[in-house]
Amino acid sequence: MIVVMKPNATPEEIKEVIRRAEAMGVQTHPIYGQQRTVVALVGDLTRVSREVFNAMDGVRETVRIQEPYKLSSRTARPENTVVELAGGRVRIGGPEIVVMAGPCSVEDRQQTIEVAHAVKEAGAKILRGGAFKPRTSPYSFQGLGLKGLEYLADAREATGLPVITEVMTVDAVPMVAEYADILQIGARNMQNYGLLQAVGKVQRPVMLKRGMSGTIEELLMCAEYIISNGNTQVMVCERGIRTYETATRNTFDLNAVPVIKQNSHLPVVADPSHGTGYREYVPAMSRAAIAAGADALILEVHPDPDNAASDGRQTLSVEAFGELMTSLNRIAEAVDRYIGDRVLQLA
Amino acid sequence: MIVVMKPNATPEEIKEVIRRAEAMGVQTHPIYGQQRTVVALVGDLTRVSREVFNAMDGVRETVRIQEPYKLSSRTARPENTVVELAGGRVRIGGPEIVVMAGPCSVEDRQQTIEVAHAVKEAGAKILRGGAFKPRTSPYSFQGLGLKGLEYLADAREATGLPVITEVMTVDAVPMVAEYADILQIGARNMQNYGLLQAVGKVQRPVMLKRGMSGTIEELLMCAEYIISNGNTQVMVCERGIRTYETATRNTFDLNAVPVIKQNSHLPVVADPSHGTGYREYVPAMSRAAIAAGADALILEVHPDPDNAASDGRQTLSVEAFGELMTSLNRIAEAVDRYIGDRVLQLA
Amino acid sequence: MIVVMKPNATPEEIKEVIRRAEAMGVQTHPIYGQQRTVVALVGDLTRVSREVFNAMDGVRETVRIQEPYKLSSRTARPENTVVELAGGRVRIGGPEIVVMAGPCSVEDRQQTIEVAHAVKEAGAKILRGGAFKPRTSPYSFQGLGLKGLEYLADAREATGLPVITEVMTVDAVPMVAEYADILQIGARNMQNYGLLQAVGKVQRPVMLKRGMSGTIEELLMCAEYIISNGNTQVMVCERGIRTYETATRNTFDLNAVPVIKQNSHLPVVADPSHGTGYREYVPAMSRAAIAAGADALILEVHPDPDNAASDGRQTLSVEAFGELMTSLNRIAEAVDRYIGDRVLQLA
Amino acid sequence: MIVVMKPNATPEEIKEVIRRAEAMGVQTHPIYGQQRTVVALVGDLTRVSREVFNAMDGVRETVRIQEPYKLSSRTARPENTVVELAGGRVRIGGPEIVVMAGPCSVEDRQQTIEVAHAVKEAGAKILRGGAFKPRTSPYSFQGLGLKGLEYLADAREATGLPVITEVMTVDAVPMVAEYADILQIGARNMQNYGLLQAVGKVQRPVMLKRGMSGTIEELLMCAEYIISNGNTQVMVCERGIRTYETATRNTFDLNAVPVIKQNSHLPVVADPSHGTGYREYVPAMSRAAIAAGADALILEVHPDPDNAASDGRQTLSVEAFGELMTSLNRIAEAVDRYIGDRVLQLA
Repeated sequence: MIVVMKPNATPEEIKEVIRRAEAMGVQTHPIYGQQRTVVALVGDLTRVSREVFNAMDGVRETVRIQEPYKLSSRTARPENTVVELAGGRVRIGGPEIVVMAGPCSVEDRQQTIEVAHAVKEAGAKILRGGAFKPRTSPYSFQGLGLKGLEYLADAREATGLPVITEVMTVDAVPMVAEYADILQIGARNMQNYGLLQAVGKVQRPVMLKRGMSGTIEELLMCAEYIISNGNTQVMVCERGIRTYETATRNTFDLNAVPVIKQNSHLPVVADPSHGTGYREYVPAMSRAAIAAGADALILEVHPDPDNAASDGRQTLSVEAFGELMTSLNRIAEAVDRYIGDRVLQLA
Repeated sequence: MIVVMKPNATPEEIKEVIRRAEAMGVQTHPIYGQQRTVVALVGDLTRVSREVFNAMDGVRETVRIQEPYKLSSRTARPENTVVELAGGRVRIGGPEIVVMAGPCSVEDRQQTIEVAHAVKEAGAKILRGGAFKPRTSPYSFQGLGLKGLEYLADAREATGLPVITEVMTVDAVPMVAEYADILQIGARNMQNYGLLQAVGKVQRPVMLKRGMSGTIEELLMCAEYIISNGNTQVMVCERGIRTYETATRNTFDLNAVPVIKQNSHLPVVADPSHGTGYREYVPAMSRAAIAAGADALILEVHPDPDNAASDGRQTLSVEAFGELMTSLNRIAEAVDRYIGDRVLQLA
Repeated sequence: MIVVMKPNATPEEIKEVIRRAEAMGVQTHPIYGQQRTVVALVGDLTRVSREVFNAMDGVRETVRIQEPYKLSSRTARPENTVVELAGGRVRIGGPEIVVMAGPCSVEDRQQTIEVAHAVKEAGAKILRGGAFKPRTSPYSFQGLGLKGLEYLADAREATGLPVITEVMTVDAVPMVAEYADILQIGARNMQNYGLLQAVGKVQRPVMLKRGMSGTIEELLMCAEYIISNGNTQVMVCERGIRTYETATRNTFDLNAVPVIKQNSHLPVVADPSHGTGYREYVPAMSRAAIAAGADALILEVHPDPDNAASDGRQTLSVEAFGELMTSLNRIAEAVDRYIGDRVLQLA
Repeated sequence: MIVVMKPNATPEEIKEVIRRAEAMGVQTHPIYGQQRTVVALVGDLTRVSREVFNAMDGVRETVRIQEPYKLSSRTARPENTVVELAGGRVRIGGPEIVVMAGPCSVEDRQQTIEVAHAVKEAGAKILRGGAFKPRTSPYSFQGLGLKGLEYLADAREATGLPVITEVMTVDAVPMVAEYADILQIGARNMQNYGLLQAVGKVQRPVMLKRGMSGTIEELLMCAEYIISNGNTQVMVCERGIRTYETATRNTFDLNAVPVIKQNSHLPVVADPSHGTGYREYVPAMSRAAIAAGADALILEVHPDPDNAASDGRQTLSVEAFGELMTSLNRIAEAVDRYIGDRVLQLA
């Protein structure tokens, strides 16, 4: 860490910075410039707070040199984390690109099983579906709750597809963990630290979505909350950030894919459905996500998008999803990866 | 609501929009333009979802004409809500401007009582202090918890100042409600709907902070979650939004003050400490907040900011706070309002 | 256009809106709702200003139904524009994906010719290089000017590669147009309307870069400035927008590619070098750009990036560029397109 | 400047950084940490480019310690710059708060003179009005040009008010400088460096507006372009930045006022008309601007806002402006400043 003093900092203020740092057990290297003095701190800084120095008299700012996350970082673990599901039949973070697909909201038992069969047929390896729905308006449909979880479990039994679904509250964690194969933390809850700690204590893989205004660094810090509580089966998901642009619902930030792959060992999932918000942009951005290096995609698919209970605007029909999967296979091959069983069929 | 059809929408697609809308009990007015057809929907639209129409074939987009919140809106309630505390001695939303002040984190019993006396002396009417702290890093100080609540209660007893403190999880709501006079929902939890529902069911005033990327409309929708659960004692708080600018920690968006005052009856609190992130900008922006029409300020004050356990960079010393209060009084008078007892002393 | 009245608008105010609209020759359809009245305007609205209605008493807002650009829009011209260079040997906007490559700044004659040979060898079809450089600091290197243009022309003669370079001022347009095959309008000048009009009057293809905070709609409106002045050979370029995220220099918004391809007939160029700002992210995002549907890439390449006069951090070495081109070919094929001569060699 | 090496940087790479820096005449202080090495550079760094080091092998990033502007900075000139007009009768940057007011666009001679008389009567000291208008659409009204300048000059003659108007192109600088007392550089042209250099070479005060996505640092760097060309009579203007919030047209960033006052000696003008985009928010934010420390306001005023040629939505009527001035006087007094002659009348 570098502590940058103000131009008019007094020798006493500089000394106090040095004294405080050394009291924390780190070495100090003051450097006296023409206009400014800086003090470099060297040693184990994990528990040294920048805030302490930021607040001191004579200090202009502090500059961090190392990334603040440890367990999420590739420095700590150079090899990729691979999240395993269904007894190892599905692996996220390896050479296979895994596609998760299904409706935004679970609506009824029949529909859920039908769409599960349909997306499996097209090559999806995981079924997605919301039982608990975070909604901007208290007057909107909030999901089927436990009933929705049961339908998802029925669809899993019928198709063999593992299931991912969102958990929104600490008290629902045990229930959702009983039914789901992957716990999803939604964008609005990225920094709901109580929830992160709770899913960190269960032995279920977690997919953590980037918040609407979350930085990549914050996303990895939130993953750190989960991992430091004992659960290492964590994936992170890019789902679009909030910017001034309104042509898309969010600004799907694919740059996050190579940035995270470089700085972290965690698998990266891309969500072009929420990322763009319009079904007509989903195919192009799904292809782009794989080309950028994503390990998995999560896509909204519904047998009748025009009648979906939520988010129909960004939902693909089963037919459109099938066509998309064919084109995704070609991109996957172009980056020396493959998608599910279809690549075998095509070979 | 206006449903805008695509240029190439077919007559059948237009008919289907009309059919669906009328099935929901609203009237329709199709307007056939040179290049586009739009269908205006008229009637009670509270439970009509835009999503349904957005997802239909032939629809380009929908445009909302009315604001989506009801209970928070000034249309529903033209007169200002006034939140009353301490048996009516403190009223937020009336002519008095209320200042809440205290440390970012509660650190020990002695410090809490001392700072409470000091801020009361300078004219503050409410004591702020964090017992549960949301922190970006799992390795940072997370607050004293229950001990912190007890110290706040002790300080209230010693000074008579009502207390505001943050509640972060659903299960902590009863405990915090037992000790605190106002429950604060932090920016990271603005859209933690489970928590909003929980505080909507207790009879304690709530101060809801705007999320880092929350729109003003979303903030009022989140207030709607609380009010629709039965708790009408709600204040909203502007605390800075996330933009590209890095000269301040957040972009303190004072425009929210007149926008909310026009569209809602809820009291508006301004938080220049978090809003700017630097103590040197807090006085100017506190004055500006009052001039813009804020009903209350919440300020971080600490007897020794350089040794504060968190957020010292944006924390005022007791002396600086005292000086600031004097200048705030002058601004309050210039907008025909007043701050606490001091205005009486000065008169 | 829809004119939305305030809840308390008077019948006179509504009448005045209707009167004003009809005086402009458009038809009006007032719709009286429970809480609000809206007035739909139908007819040729190209020259009807929303501002006029926005400013009227009793009006809350206006909502545009059609896109504001005409000549840039796919509605006006359904087939793709193809920009032709070098007597038709290079075509941007057709099935071939064209790669433009070269140094950020032109530095000397020898280096320019060498890098031109090197990028041509690797499959680039156009040489890029800056002679006039927009720099944040008045004390930074501002480019070689005319000398730089001459070196670019020499490199073209030596290699046969057409040349793209930036023009920053109206008075430099004739000079740059004499030397360059494509005139680049930089991001800072996207809304420099005098400059847009000037390049609209020369017969040279123009590549218009999206401004740092330009919306896609504004970008197409700026293209409209050029086209409406007579120059139809226009390409638009996504180069990253300004958001709160700092892990990348800009947020390279690849979503712009499918959005523009849907709404406009103009070719789309992607600039992952400026878009990401870090050379290690350029390969992944170049692949993603092609997968998303870009018609061309513009990449910074330098024989010795560590000694480049500007932007070395985002510049590829010649070797890295060669490797990248091989992988780009594979992506291009996966979307049924191809890159230059190499695809022939590989076939 | 601090050069931060990558964790795996080799001793040779570190040596090369040191060698390069010393070749530029600056001293180096390498600091070897547990995981990282950093090299601090000390000396005159004005012409040392960070880019050179950013691009070197083994370098992760560079961190700037000093602000990049010199002539604009308060370090270079501790006392406030005061811009003088009308032979010293109007001074911007001193204790008086100066209000500039008038129509967005100059429309005709009569209207211009009338509004000039009206705003003067209410206490304005400078007349604003656009003769050249930057418009998003090429089909919108672009201003009266030279005729507009003549009308402004006529209004100055009639009232004695100095005139501010925008100049958009380099070739128009001499003409506008002949008619106007202050040259305005608009937000879209903040980084039009050719234009900045041109106005830097005339002896007319300049008001430079912050770009829609300009940082405060970039704004001061652009002021540096003007000052370093010889013109020290520069003011900067906050007029709203582009964020995700749509309740206001822009996000008027009043925080810029105390930030600029601390870091620079230049006078700060606030533009709540463009900043908020809605006339109903202009009074509150005008008061807030003065409370925050602005030296001047620029406000859109029109005798009949509903019939203004542009930007009527954000334009005050003459009556509303008169009322606002009275309330602004009270705020000015509350911060120990005053507005024009009226304060004398009131005294």
